Amino acid sequence: MSWTFSQRAQQLTSSAIREILKVTERPEVISFAGGLPAPDTFPVERLRASSEAVLAANPTAALQYGPTEGYMALREWLAARHSTPQLRIDPANVLVTTGSQQALDLLGKVLIDPGSRVLVETPTYLGALQAFSLSEPEYVAVPSDASGPIAAAVTAELLAGARFMYCLPNFQNPSGRRIPLARREEIAAIAVRHGLLLLEDDPYGALSYAGDALPSLLSLCPHNVVYMGSFSKVLAPGLRVGYLIAPPELHRKLVQAKQAADLHTPSYTQRIVHQTIKDGFLDEHIPTIRALYAQRCAAMLEAMDEYFPAQVRWNRPEGGMFIWVELPQGMNSFELLDRAVARNVAFVPGAPFFAHQPQLNTLRLSFATVPPDRIRQGIAVLGEILREAGKGVS
Amino acid sequence: MSWTFSQRAQQLTSSAIREILKVTERPEVISFAGGLPAPDTFPVERLRASSEAVLAANPTAALQYGPTEGYMALREWLAARHSTPQLRIDPANVLVTTGSQQALDLLGKVLIDPGSRVLVETPTYLGALQAFSLSEPEYVAVPSDASGPIAAAVTAELLAGARFMYCLPNFQNPSGRRIPLARREEIAAIAVRHGLLLLEDDPYGALSYAGDALPSLLSLCPHNVVYMGSFSKVLAPGLRVGYLIAPPELHRKLVQAKQAADLHTPSYTQRIVHQTIKDGFLDEHIPTIRALYAQRCAAMLEAMDEYFPAQVRWNRPEGGMFIWVELPQGMNSFELLDRAVARNVAFVPGAPFFAHQPQLNTLRLSFATVPPDRIRQGIAVLGEILREAGKGVS
Repeated sequence: MSWTFSQRAQQLTSSAIREILKVTERPEVISFAGGLPAPDTFPVERLRASSEAVLAANPTAALQYGPTEGYMALREWLAARHSTPQLRIDPANVLVTTGSQQALDLLGKVLIDPGSRVLVETPTYLGALQAFSLSEPEYVAVPSDASGPIAAAVTAELLAGARFMYCLPNFQNPSGRRIPLARREEIAAIAVRHGLLLLEDDPYGALSYAGDALPSLLSLCPHNVVYMGSFSKVLAPGLRVGYLIAPPELHRKLVQAKQAADLHTPSYTQRIVHQTIKDGFLDEHIPTIRALYAQRCAAMLEAMDEYFPAQVRWNRPEGGMFIWVELPQGMNSFELLDRAVARNVAFVPGAPFFAHQPQLNTLRLSFATVPPDRIRQGIAVLGEILREAGKGVS
Repeated sequence: MSWTFSQRAQQLTSSAIREILKVTERPEVISFAGGLPAPDTFPVERLRASSEAVLAANPTAALQYGPTEGYMALREWLAARHSTPQLRIDPANVLVTTGSQQALDLLGKVLIDPGSRVLVETPTYLGALQAFSLSEPEYVAVPSDASGPIAAAVTAELLAGARFMYCLPNFQNPSGRRIPLARREEIAAIAVRHGLLLLEDDPYGALSYAGDALPSLLSLCPHNVVYMGSFSKVLAPGLRVGYLIAPPELHRKLVQAKQAADLHTPSYTQRIVHQTIKDGFLDEHIPTIRALYAQRCAAMLEAMDEYFPAQVRWNRPEGGMFIWVELPQGMNSFELLDRAVARNVAFVPGAPFFAHQPQLNTLRLSFATVPPDRIRQGIAVLGEILREAGKGVS
């Protein structure tokens, strides 16, 4: 018995990161590889109480099929959360998704034909590349710097026929960078001028530990943006509750695609999330997550300052979960990983995060799940390996 | 601001049924339209206890990201459940999905190119047509009778280039029919002879109220089958936990597609399902569901015998949730629906369930959620409408 896979399936490969993560599950490994939030931040007792309250209040609704668009009370909460004095979000434009990964899948389905041009940052989120790739786009990697995609590089030529530009303005996975306000305004202006659709992916937006949140692209040019958010980093990813906010015509198509994809996101988990957050819980909870990550980020930066050789460069994130490292040209972070894993330390090579021309001398470090003393230990080992490898390169 | 939808998105339309269901949410409507299980069957107290137990036992695992393949203990349970003395299912071949609707989406992505030939029953499950259609197949509607797809009609010519045949052997939605053993054996023989892949969709298999379950296609020709199952009809659909069993090479591709689709099914709901069923609960619970549906089915058949005009035909299901009705040629069930809704009774027209050449004189009745006295009342009204309409036709 054999079968024929579709064109798109023939291109599917298992994520390199996924294979790495399997290795790093051994408890003796100090892993900076995962993209997981710290489980210490999961509000277990609240979620237990919410589960009970939801089943007590309306067990039938919590356990029955529900509307594809999502639980209306949650959609209303989300609309209010994202409304500003200048911009009222209509709950009708909110779609609850099975994690924000599903939003990427639905957007790819609805907006990409084989060969369609899609603009992405350099580097960009691997999970988005995986989701969009099933619709076989032609990626255009927009030249980017420490402030994100370079607006001047988004020329009319680059934009010709582009279905959308995919942006991660806050503490991007993998680079940890935040797009500053001036750059956001430039991108919004380009979008409005050229009728460009922006997909704004914002799972880390709440995790700023250096000052206030910056205005979203959604708030800067609402007619040109599909906004994606998630409860994975502020409550718990195992609930798989994300959402998107989209203009009406696009929202309608996304709902139809979602109906075919999984009918709806679990009624039970949607209601648990709503029950947990409806009375302001996130406003007390999120600061505790920020404080934990800020401390771990500082510990990692301090250890890097101490142990990493001078030729290695990295950023100093203002939020989120990741630090991005650039090694001297000629170094290959995959080779480095082998040496690191042999010494029970893991990270993720940067190459898979590039749509084109992967920079083999980059890597991503996550500090979110590792306590400061283990961070120090692991960074010291990486420092030694970097010094050894540096000798080979000169 | 405007944007370009993908080819596949331009074909997307909202399900006719979905629009009908919105009308029928008014409490005064006696609805035979829904495909919902009876909420009286949801084991609320068990699920509450399971939620609590899962969060007490291992809150981190229940709330953290998990493997794309699903929770291993649940996969092991499912493999054991579907193993027979003749056939051992390997847990490695099980993939937990976000409802079995997601299995349809993943299979479409991995197996269908635009124009690929896909064989379906006549009629067939609308949700599968919606999921597959996003990959733009060329449907071939296999001639079918009261025993399911007619094996003799599945000729070599029909099979040429077919990616798979999609089958619902047990109490099919919409027709309620069960494929008898002899017909199953014929279909399995064709699959083996021609190297045809069969997608066996089995959400209602446990709901037989006329004798034992029949052997699955999976058990008859395991190398040629992807089997899809669900907890929606035996526990609760709001948990959105389904699964598939697939040969290793195909399973691998489906896992990759699932990773891009939603990373994984919620860890929490998977563990709640496993906690609920692991000690044999379904073996005591499912007979109570069967008894309820058998009683409601009998009530509906009795009322139809009494109130429906002689020219109307219908089947007598041996399980599941649906009765399929054929009106005299020339009658249009959409027109009938308007009259029925005006009198606060609803059903679903049969036409959307046909890949080609919809039979406008068919309709689907669900008895699952309606108590016997209301069934009787609603069928009496439909009987009157049918008589009135019948005068116009003959």
